[in-house]
Amino acid sequence: MRNSERTKVKLLLDSGVVGTDVAAMGWVRTKRGNKNVVFVALNDGSTIHNIQVVFDMTRFTEDQLKGVTTGACIAVRGKLVESPGSGQRVEIQADSVELLGEADPSTYPLQKKGHSLEFLREIAHLRPRTNTFGAVLRIRHAMAYAIHKYFNDKGFFYIHSPIITGSDAEGAGAMFRVTTLDMNNPPRTEDGKIDWSEDFFGKEAKLTVSGQLEAELGALALSEVYTFGPTFRAENSNTPRHLAEFWMIEPEMAFYDIQDNMDLAEDFLKYLIRYALDNCKDDLEFLNKMWDKELIERLKFVLENPFERLTYTKAIEILESANQKWEFPVFWGADLQSEHERYLVEKHFKKPVILTDYPKEIKAFYMKQNDDGKTVRAMDVLFPKIGEIIGGSQREEEYQKLIKRIHELNIPEKDVWWYLETRKFGSAPHSGFGLGFERLLLFVTGMSNIRDVIPFPRTPNNCEF
Amino acid sequence: MRNSERTKVKLLLDSGVVGTDVAAMGWVRTKRGNKNVVFVALNDGSTIHNIQVVFDMTRFTEDQLKGVTTGACIAVRGKLVESPGSGQRVEIQADSVELLGEADPSTYPLQKKGHSLEFLREIAHLRPRTNTFGAVLRIRHAMAYAIHKYFNDKGFFYIHSPIITGSDAEGAGAMFRVTTLDMNNPPRTEDGKIDWSEDFFGKEAKLTVSGQLEAELGALALSEVYTFGPTFRAENSNTPRHLAEFWMIEPEMAFYDIQDNMDLAEDFLKYLIRYALDNCKDDLEFLNKMWDKELIERLKFVLENPFERLTYTKAIEILESANQKWEFPVFWGADLQSEHERYLVEKHFKKPVILTDYPKEIKAFYMKQNDDGKTVRAMDVLFPKIGEIIGGSQREEEYQKLIKRIHELNIPEKDVWWYLETRKFGSAPHSGFGLGFERLLLFVTGMSNIRDVIPFPRTPNNCEF
Repeated sequence: MRNSERTKVKLLLDSGVVGTDVAAMGWVRTKRGNKNVVFVALNDGSTIHNIQVVFDMTRFTEDQLKGVTTGACIAVRGKLVESPGSGQRVEIQADSVELLGEADPSTYPLQKKGHSLEFLREIAHLRPRTNTFGAVLRIRHAMAYAIHKYFNDKGFFYIHSPIITGSDAEGAGAMFRVTTLDMNNPPRTEDGKIDWSEDFFGKEAKLTVSGQLEAELGALALSEVYTFGPTFRAENSNTPRHLAEFWMIEPEMAFYDIQDNMDLAEDFLKYLIRYALDNCKDDLEFLNKMWDKELIERLKFVLENPFERLTYTKAIEILESANQKWEFPVFWGADLQSEHERYLVEKHFKKPVILTDYPKEIKAFYMKQNDDGKTVRAMDVLFPKIGEIIGGSQREEEYQKLIKRIHELNIPEKDVWWYLETRKFGSAPHSGFGLGFERLLLFVTGMSNIRDVIPFPRTPNNCEF
Repeated sequence: MRNSERTKVKLLLDSGVVGTDVAAMGWVRTKRGNKNVVFVALNDGSTIHNIQVVFDMTRFTEDQLKGVTTGACIAVRGKLVESPGSGQRVEIQADSVELLGEADPSTYPLQKKGHSLEFLREIAHLRPRTNTFGAVLRIRHAMAYAIHKYFNDKGFFYIHSPIITGSDAEGAGAMFRVTTLDMNNPPRTEDGKIDWSEDFFGKEAKLTVSGQLEAELGALALSEVYTFGPTFRAENSNTPRHLAEFWMIEPEMAFYDIQDNMDLAEDFLKYLIRYALDNCKDDLEFLNKMWDKELIERLKFVLENPFERLTYTKAIEILESANQKWEFPVFWGADLQSEHERYLVEKHFKKPVILTDYPKEIKAFYMKQNDDGKTVRAMDVLFPKIGEIIGGSQREEEYQKLIKRIHELNIPEKDVWWYLETRKFGSAPHSGFGLGFERLLLFVTGMSNIRDVIPFPRTPNNCEF
């Protein structure tokens, strides 16, 4: 059967015309029946729903359906008819069936019964065929598309920041080395050190931890830009919230101050969540039923409430006077932990929170310094269940203040000469933030392990597939 | 001035209402005039066009405009008035000006005069502020967006294939190593070899050269998917057509045979080119004028002609009988070189060409084997000026044929066990192709060096910024 002859299952279910001849291709989810009639649930990934294919066994031999087992791929022709059963509008009354690829029931790992998420991670090559991962991957697609659409509609330009970087200055975490040197016998200089000038890039190279610095270069020419690319952390963190390779969205805008930045972040997150509710209804309902009974409620809750905005200093006061035991002590200058963030969001304000003006010591060198000499114009957006979902700031646009901070922190000027030059030539107030794509997906899908919202997770001791 | 008060230059020029008070922010491109009147060309990156700001010097002091020099960033308020000059509908009659960031004329590298592309590569942090790179980056954005829109509208799902891979089997080129081991003193096993089990991922890890194999896993669950991500080649190629880091789009579709694959490739390329002509008119006209006088004509030419489709074998016959001297000899089994591809496209057929059914020896292991035992169901799309723009194939979906080829080519089964399993469980005919994003951009922008269509090129001995 040619692909051009088939109709996707989603289309058949949504708008297929009863009484027409149709063709479908896909994978068998279940097969049941008796010697008179056989029912096959067929899925092609276009939707979480299966279409029921009914085989009248007076017209088929058992041999013809022998290979039609769970996991097998088949092509079916037949008539679209009203479905007498509940839960589906239409079904296919089969005229013919073709077995495209069998799936030996004695070895196929995805039989009808449910599987643990841990087990499914071991077979990441097959898990997209399950309801859960089909739903997650369709939502992942929808969110990626919504991100591009949001920024395109607003006149932002997508900037591909580099993945391989010669700069160590991003400072967001431990980095992976990228090299073509022979590790067994690397070239060495006269004093016995590795001779990096012999490496592919003529110097040490790493995988980026953030595209922000390069995005700033774009913003200071094109006004409003964003990145959407992979970033890396070489940290030995085996937690449900950390990946060694993950995707990040980093908008960066000339002429935005921190208020504009907060407005954008709130509008952006609400747009994405609304897009998911509008476009991924079936998948969200499935995930809500299977994994997180409060998922849809939580998504709507975020939409309906304006985010609470307050300073870090005010937040510390609230936490200090809370009648609560903390695992990590609360004091002005402390980095907030997940327990503190969730207290503010879930217990105190009962809505998303944006904290601003953090102590400069716990934030990056590029954040705009406030006049108090103690705080910087940072902003973190905190969400229910997951804590920090966005981190951002107004950037320091004054050359003298920036270079002083770079010296204080012993960042080598040679690594950031180009960044500094943008503050020498046509500098402008500007702001930006970073959204971890998988953090967003944890929130939108209700899944609780970040390994389950990316197709092929990379973590310590794991880069299979 | 708050960002919310300004209007982007593109909007002012396109639809600003004469007589209204407006505000604009941006970078000074030029300043000229006399003691009575000063004209500033202001650009904010939203369009290639500048808006003219007119300063009546009876209302401003020279001091107020002292810092307003080429490259400086300013905020302007004034009235939008009809422009008496040609080439622009409106201009701003300035009421006030604020200097946001100066650009010392004695050190700012982007003065009015033209710069060579080579020089601009050295200042990749500033070149987005030039007309040429502004245009290229806006087109780059438009093409990226069009790619996502095309696939989303067709029901494809975006799959993020992994960047770090433990598999060596992609076979598309030399790979970069990714490691956290101490290169000076790596851990070794008892027999003196590097102990990769101590590395971050517990084994050797590389940067991906293609997301195709993982995309196939997605297609065999969700029907139609695509990747759009960075890929890497550790080849020491210093040519205008090679980058060590570049972006690739790889659609992969279950149930498509090679005809469907060709139809999709042709429709996709034409959609992108039409999108550019419809949405990037001003930028294309600029590039056409400055860099490539045949650019727009060439884009239209591709749109207007159905691509010629023929087999590799037929193409060899044409080349052999051509009255032409070749640098690389032509014979059945030879890999086609750029001179051959361009002859077919530019001289013989005078339109884009899709070649199919290449000798299996010059193509990858995963391509579907034809019954002749000699050729595989590959397809390459050849374009004027740049040669191969797309490479793809129908994939081998039969387990026995695939494993035989893998053994012939000595690919370790342990690296591709997961890929093989998709041919054991619910295999389906499927196809896909790869489009190098920067190759596409070379074609659409008319630029001739690939370093000039990516913001921060990575090449041998170069990973600055």
